[in-house]
Amino acid sequence: MSARSNERIAYFNGRFVPESEVLVPFRDRSFIYGDGAFDLTRTFGHRLFKLREHVDRLYRSLRYLRIDPGMGPEEMCRITEEVFERNRHLLGADDDYWVGQRISRGVKQIEGDNWDHYGTTVICECMPLPFKERAAYYRDGIRVVVPSVRRTPPQSLTPRAKTHNYLNLLVAEHEVHSQDPGAWAVLLDTDGNLSEGLGSNIFVVRDGVILTPHERMVLPGVSRQTAIDLAREQGLEVREADIDLYDAYNAEEIFITSTSFCICPVVTMNGVHIGEEGQVYGPITKKLIDAYVRFVDHDFVAQYLRRLG
Amino acid sequence: MSARSNERIAYFNGRFVPESEVLVPFRDRSFIYGDGAFDLTRTFGHRLFKLREHVDRLYRSLRYLRIDPGMGPEEMCRITEEVFERNRHLLGADDDYWVGQRISRGVKQIEGDNWDHYGTTVICECMPLPFKERAAYYRDGIRVVVPSVRRTPPQSLTPRAKTHNYLNLLVAEHEVHSQDPGAWAVLLDTDGNLSEGLGSNIFVVRDGVILTPHERMVLPGVSRQTAIDLAREQGLEVREADIDLYDAYNAEEIFITSTSFCICPVVTMNGVHIGEEGQVYGPITKKLIDAYVRFVDHDFVAQYLRRLG
Amino acid sequence: MSARSNERIAYFNGRFVPESEVLVPFRDRSFIYGDGAFDLTRTFGHRLFKLREHVDRLYRSLRYLRIDPGMGPEEMCRITEEVFERNRHLLGADDDYWVGQRISRGVKQIEGDNWDHYGTTVICECMPLPFKERAAYYRDGIRVVVPSVRRTPPQSLTPRAKTHNYLNLLVAEHEVHSQDPGAWAVLLDTDGNLSEGLGSNIFVVRDGVILTPHERMVLPGVSRQTAIDLAREQGLEVREADIDLYDAYNAEEIFITSTSFCICPVVTMNGVHIGEEGQVYGPITKKLIDAYVRFVDHDFVAQYLRRLG
Amino acid sequence: MSARSNERIAYFNGRFVPESEVLVPFRDRSFIYGDGAFDLTRTFGHRLFKLREHVDRLYRSLRYLRIDPGMGPEEMCRITEEVFERNRHLLGADDDYWVGQRISRGVKQIEGDNWDHYGTTVICECMPLPFKERAAYYRDGIRVVVPSVRRTPPQSLTPRAKTHNYLNLLVAEHEVHSQDPGAWAVLLDTDGNLSEGLGSNIFVVRDGVILTPHERMVLPGVSRQTAIDLAREQGLEVREADIDLYDAYNAEEIFITSTSFCICPVVTMNGVHIGEEGQVYGPITKKLIDAYVRFVDHDFVAQYLRRLG
Amino acid sequence: MSARSNERIAYFNGRFVPESEVLVPFRDRSFIYGDGAFDLTRTFGHRLFKLREHVDRLYRSLRYLRIDPGMGPEEMCRITEEVFERNRHLLGADDDYWVGQRISRGVKQIEGDNWDHYGTTVICECMPLPFKERAAYYRDGIRVVVPSVRRTPPQSLTPRAKTHNYLNLLVAEHEVHSQDPGAWAVLLDTDGNLSEGLGSNIFVVRDGVILTPHERMVLPGVSRQTAIDLAREQGLEVREADIDLYDAYNAEEIFITSTSFCICPVVTMNGVHIGEEGQVYGPITKKLIDAYVRFVDHDFVAQYLRRLG
Amino acid sequence: MSARSNERIAYFNGRFVPESEVLVPFRDRSFIYGDGAFDLTRTFGHRLFKLREHVDRLYRSLRYLRIDPGMGPEEMCRITEEVFERNRHLLGADDDYWVGQRISRGVKQIEGDNWDHYGTTVICECMPLPFKERAAYYRDGIRVVVPSVRRTPPQSLTPRAKTHNYLNLLVAEHEVHSQDPGAWAVLLDTDGNLSEGLGSNIFVVRDGVILTPHERMVLPGVSRQTAIDLAREQGLEVREADIDLYDAYNAEEIFITSTSFCICPVVTMNGVHIGEEGQVYGPITKKLIDAYVRFVDHDFVAQYLRRLG
Repeated sequence: MSARSNERIAYFNGRFVPESEVLVPFRDRSFIYGDGAFDLTRTFGHRLFKLREHVDRLYRSLRYLRIDPGMGPEEMCRITEEVFERNRHLLGADDDYWVGQRISRGVKQIEGDNWDHYGTTVICECMPLPFKERAAYYRDGIRVVVPSVRRTPPQSLTPRAKTHNYLNLLVAEHEVHSQDPGAWAVLLDTDGNLSEGLGSNIFVVRDGVILTPHERMVLPGVSRQTAIDLAREQGLEVREADIDLYDAYNAEEIFITSTSFCICPVVTMNGVHIGEEGQVYGPITKKLIDAYVRFVDHDFVAQYLRRLG
Repeated sequence: MSARSNERIAYFNGRFVPESEVLVPFRDRSFIYGDGAFDLTRTFGHRLFKLREHVDRLYRSLRYLRIDPGMGPEEMCRITEEVFERNRHLLGADDDYWVGQRISRGVKQIEGDNWDHYGTTVICECMPLPFKERAAYYRDGIRVVVPSVRRTPPQSLTPRAKTHNYLNLLVAEHEVHSQDPGAWAVLLDTDGNLSEGLGSNIFVVRDGVILTPHERMVLPGVSRQTAIDLAREQGLEVREADIDLYDAYNAEEIFITSTSFCICPVVTMNGVHIGEEGQVYGPITKKLIDAYVRFVDHDFVAQYLRRLG
Repeated sequence: MSARSNERIAYFNGRFVPESEVLVPFRDRSFIYGDGAFDLTRTFGHRLFKLREHVDRLYRSLRYLRIDPGMGPEEMCRITEEVFERNRHLLGADDDYWVGQRISRGVKQIEGDNWDHYGTTVICECMPLPFKERAAYYRDGIRVVVPSVRRTPPQSLTPRAKTHNYLNLLVAEHEVHSQDPGAWAVLLDTDGNLSEGLGSNIFVVRDGVILTPHERMVLPGVSRQTAIDLAREQGLEVREADIDLYDAYNAEEIFITSTSFCICPVVTMNGVHIGEEGQVYGPITKKLIDAYVRFVDHDFVAQYLRRLG
Repeated sequence: MSARSNERIAYFNGRFVPESEVLVPFRDRSFIYGDGAFDLTRTFGHRLFKLREHVDRLYRSLRYLRIDPGMGPEEMCRITEEVFERNRHLLGADDDYWVGQRISRGVKQIEGDNWDHYGTTVICECMPLPFKERAAYYRDGIRVVVPSVRRTPPQSLTPRAKTHNYLNLLVAEHEVHSQDPGAWAVLLDTDGNLSEGLGSNIFVVRDGVILTPHERMVLPGVSRQTAIDLAREQGLEVREADIDLYDAYNAEEIFITSTSFCICPVVTMNGVHIGEEGQVYGPITKKLIDAYVRFVDHDFVAQYLRRLG
Repeated sequence: MSARSNERIAYFNGRFVPESEVLVPFRDRSFIYGDGAFDLTRTFGHRLFKLREHVDRLYRSLRYLRIDPGMGPEEMCRITEEVFERNRHLLGADDDYWVGQRISRGVKQIEGDNWDHYGTTVICECMPLPFKERAAYYRDGIRVVVPSVRRTPPQSLTPRAKTHNYLNLLVAEHEVHSQDPGAWAVLLDTDGNLSEGLGSNIFVVRDGVILTPHERMVLPGVSRQTAIDLAREQGLEVREADIDLYDAYNAEEIFITSTSFCICPVVTMNGVHIGEEGQVYGPITKKLIDAYVRFVDHDFVAQYLRRLG
Repeated sequence: MSARSNERIAYFNGRFVPESEVLVPFRDRSFIYGDGAFDLTRTFGHRLFKLREHVDRLYRSLRYLRIDPGMGPEEMCRITEEVFERNRHLLGADDDYWVGQRISRGVKQIEGDNWDHYGTTVICECMPLPFKERAAYYRDGIRVVVPSVRRTPPQSLTPRAKTHNYLNLLVAEHEVHSQDPGAWAVLLDTDGNLSEGLGSNIFVVRDGVILTPHERMVLPGVSRQTAIDLAREQGLEVREADIDLYDAYNAEEIFITSTSFCICPVVTMNGVHIGEEGQVYGPITKKLIDAYVRFVDHDFVAQYLRRLG
């Protein structure tokens, strides 16, 4: 292995290789059809977070797609851990990784080609978290804008599988970014209820109750579940609900969860300021972030804010 | 260029290289999100068919996705033609190619990586047509089965852009193939009207009129348009229409069009035999196939049937 | 009464007659419009099961249709019991009956006709259960296939009334049987959630919780309610829920309930094997069947399996 | 044959018998499921009207239901004609018949029963037209009321097959008749467009153009087609269209077509008077009725009005 | 102030004036667009009921519409109370008032006009309750009729904001009143579930459980909440639910709540009598009315019935 | 009449009065419910444009709302013309008016009030066109942004009646203006097709064919019809169609029509530039504007651009 000493290592169909060698044939079905699934956890202070929960969700996505990754979830966890261990030394003291898996149905042989590998492709990888890019959200709050594009309905493709088909979410994001490149797109479902944003879940606090869209219409995030569990431990009521723009505009607080964000406050919805005047972190959001920080034993808010220079 | 002398050549971001060298970084957005578009024409007797029409459709898909391929359609055509010319000598006398383009939004730079290329990736390629695999359809007719999965509605993602997000169609195909691996899946839209199958359009003949689903709900195939044009030249009436299963079961004839199929007859819909008893090729289907053969100056039906050995 | 001594007896508008004499005018509105309702319970070891619950549901169906059966539920129960008693001697020791009522709005007088009876027609009848026909389901599990046809929405006709209009379910079954004559059709509703099959309810176990479609979209089966009650007595959580194909494919167990089935395991959904490899009876399904057997004091599984010869 | 001399004769599974002998087993699938189809034409001055068109539609309904009547349409026409001939002598000079077919999937054998006939049941019959009952509509016009119940959508069951499942239409009619027993119910489809009433089509005249709901959402009536053809012969424009209540309230004229009505004017829609003050027969309705009368060579309006006494 | 001594006083943009002086420019946006919101409570025996709850709801409506009333809810309450106090002397001993606020976005200045006031307009007013007009409902029960018009879906305009856009509800009422001028219109939502009537909520009792439509599809009435709270205090189960016509026809009891009605029994739904034969006040309705009377310390039923003369 | 000499005059329930005297009781149903309809034409060079077409549309709106204005369309035209004549002298040479009618169901008498007028209120008025405010659109083109809010569906309230209920359109506009105060909101319908903006229609040119949303989903503008007529006179093909965002992004040209705009070019849709690079006025838009200018004999584009100073 001749990788540059500071190059990250990834797992690629049975071998650990420098990332620059993880090259997929252009006939790979994930490249031409998005025919694959993935999952990503993160590290907190160089410790992997709920890896098994993420891997279990990956296997549910694969089952929905009828892709057999050729190994069980224990082996997948073990390889993921090894990928992280092989890249740990590249992490700065205040940095952390996304760590995860990408499974493609791979290449189907056609006449006259000659690839090293056919069939399911398994990649495990890690990536630095985008602390700098997103730091301002922790200072100013997120501006959510709702695009006209509706989340793909489950009778066409379930939003619950984390697949390599992201165009519905990306096309929605294009709309929003054409108006405000720093805004965060959260889509409605075809009934006009809030669903989710790209890789992120939304929570709305009304009358002290924490509401979040039904699992059926969203990717059921591991961070979403962590936030729900922590809220309940704090004695807060959390409910899945049909949530529309009337709820959002009248919310006391709104926040976003995702693997990278953990929990991040929303400051406006379609330009309507949420909660008290001047509020960025509402009291429940603050309480949940504190609980999250304790739970992962890592102050991710401070970690983000340190990037603001 | 050290390719095996019988290896196909593809265009890859500015260079013509052996296919086995067309390897994309696993962080390419088409691999991880299906964030790209493609288009494919075919050759008839080693002649390219309506290349410009296909390239124009590719540019409409790209515009919808807001991807700039970095060149205009003329240049894209020229490169595609060169790809074909460089691979022509590998074609058997009775073989033909799919020839087309794949455009990905490509890799976005992240900290610590080191790829040769960032941003839009352009690939032009050719592939042998699957004559053997599909030959029986021309002898026996296609068995269409309608899955429970509904075609993604345009308010989520337009079916008219030919993108790298095919999971809706693939998940539908899994359902159908779990019952009959040789059947062809054609999906209904969310109103219960016929839309399309994987890379293929459907036509239903009722009372001598040729009906096909509205363009809004399908990829508007170049072969679909060719069939429409030829039918009108033959004095046949063709209309876009809402077509449901009552229409299908009571049709005199049904046929499928696609770049590879051109026109291929359907013999059953959900097990209901179409048209006269024992019918495979109905009279209008036959007439249109003859016109198509004349138009492309190539007997693709004979070409398929010769593979049945 | 000149019936063959081994002929079953039915109640027909006030009289107990041999079944072969229960002939309805071809102008009966149930014959020409399906304008009627019915209900059926079964016997277990020659004992009637929850007759009153079935009769109460019948009266709810009639109220929805605005049909007055001309008697109250007590009288309806009494007649039904008498029908069973009059036919009990025809039952083999290991056989059991479906026993129930069919109420039609009957014949409306037109000029020149001359029927014995006009207006509401009441029939009570019994039928041998199809043990032999369905025995293999208890050995191999049920293969569920989801057709493209969607369950009629409540704003058109409530699925909760058990009426003589079954074509939506039958047309769905034709689709499925055209692919696999032994498969069981379960329809989605117009939102893409599982609803019900012909005379049968579905239950999906996920993370140890038992889910079943909302009552609003299905006939609320008496066996469905029995299964729910027994599960709760066993300390299991049961919830009405929106359940889609992602849930089904990732379920630990799936089972069907109906008057005849009681509880029967599902082994595949659209070809996806449910639960552990090789599983037919999952642990919760097994537990509920055991509870059901105890509750009805009758081993219906053994009864079915004895027919396999 | 021992029929009363003035009893009508019907065809019943191969025999011509007095109507009172056309009795179907209570286990016939049309009785218990509405599992059958029918069609009815009428006579004008004792002449059958477009029998073949009706029989062809019957065969389309049967094909959708996958019922094989055991004979072709020619034989079905011949039998229907014979039924009419055998009953012609019973018609008063100013009376006419509905004449048609009812095809049921019939009885499926179960253990211990003993019917004369299993499988498809074919009945051909005639009935006096309800001149007296409907005569007032021709004097006063029809009051249309739109119920809250929506027409069953095609993805559940096509409205285009004339089946024995009429409960959607009947439940709608109950709503309307609970307010006005003499009103005529016309349902909206699930998008809020006018569809059809029980056995009847609706036409709306706006700006001199005649609009009628798309065939996909209604039974495509033979009388509907006759009205369309006659209108076009008169140089009038006729179009299938999405028609809503705004159109209806602003219509110049509205009329209903059906086999029995032929064409009958609508005077109010949900209480809104249609057209000019005091108008019952608008000019286009009048023109079409005149054309219809000429076409069938029979003044059906006068025939109805004579019943008013 | 030169008002007739018996003229009611209203608050109008900062002043208390006789009602006849509360005249708005015809260019006010509430007049030309319905661009405003309102709320109304009532008095019981000359005491204001839950004023703050009504004012809080008003502010949620305003927030949804992005209208700033220029004062906080405390001030709004204070003004409302003063309006009531200034008009109290006009109330007969057995009379009571509606008392509330109307906030319009007001007039936008255009060239050449010259109004006293531009921008948000605030009106506080009171009105005598329509005891006489509605008294018969308390004797005979309300006849509910469901129109064909569907409640506006939340993705178009939330039903939860009490705005000056009432045409959807009014157009529905026109339909119903064209059949029965004394009937009460309750609309279905676009899925066919009961939503609400003009300014009124509906409750359906089934199996002893009190069901009411989900808040998302209705104006969440203060009286609705009061009824829910009182029911729970009585140990009754209350649930938000999808409720359709099958539920309604099979309900044991149905009642309507509104600020003026408090609770009033429903006697028929689309002509179907609810509950026991002859029932007007079902036992749960009676119990809740009694609790309501105690809670407000005022017998509103007697108050209504006294008007029957 | 003591109006300031430069004050505009309006017609108000039978009298011509200064605008400042057109004050409506705050209990007018248009103020509290938006229960009214209106229509507006404009002048070109001080000449009224298609007044009768506008008044006819007003009467259709009124008929839908069941409001009787108490006079016929001829009288309404006459009054409108008089209003214009009485205000003509106030127009600057380069100015023009909106001129129209507002009809409210008016005030319903309640106990203790004392208004001058009860029942239907008729106002005819004129207003200066907003040349200055909108002039930049003619220089730079309109930026259209599509909000998440969907146009109210016809089964709730027809978009074809021009009523005083505009909140659906206003709430949509708030969303868009929160991102870009100068952008123009055009809403999708509930199927994801383009419908209309506030008082404005949209046209999309694809492959040289001019497409515009179906009348059923929009207010059928008089300017829309004028544009259609002029296009056809120019030999251009115009079609009503389902138009989605794929169409819009791939359009050669897009333009907006309204009474005030006549025809105004669209330069971006959700940030996607329409047509050729740098294009503001596409060739077909230009051609139609020229035809419009000739037709009305007035250069409205120049009139707008002169305001840019």
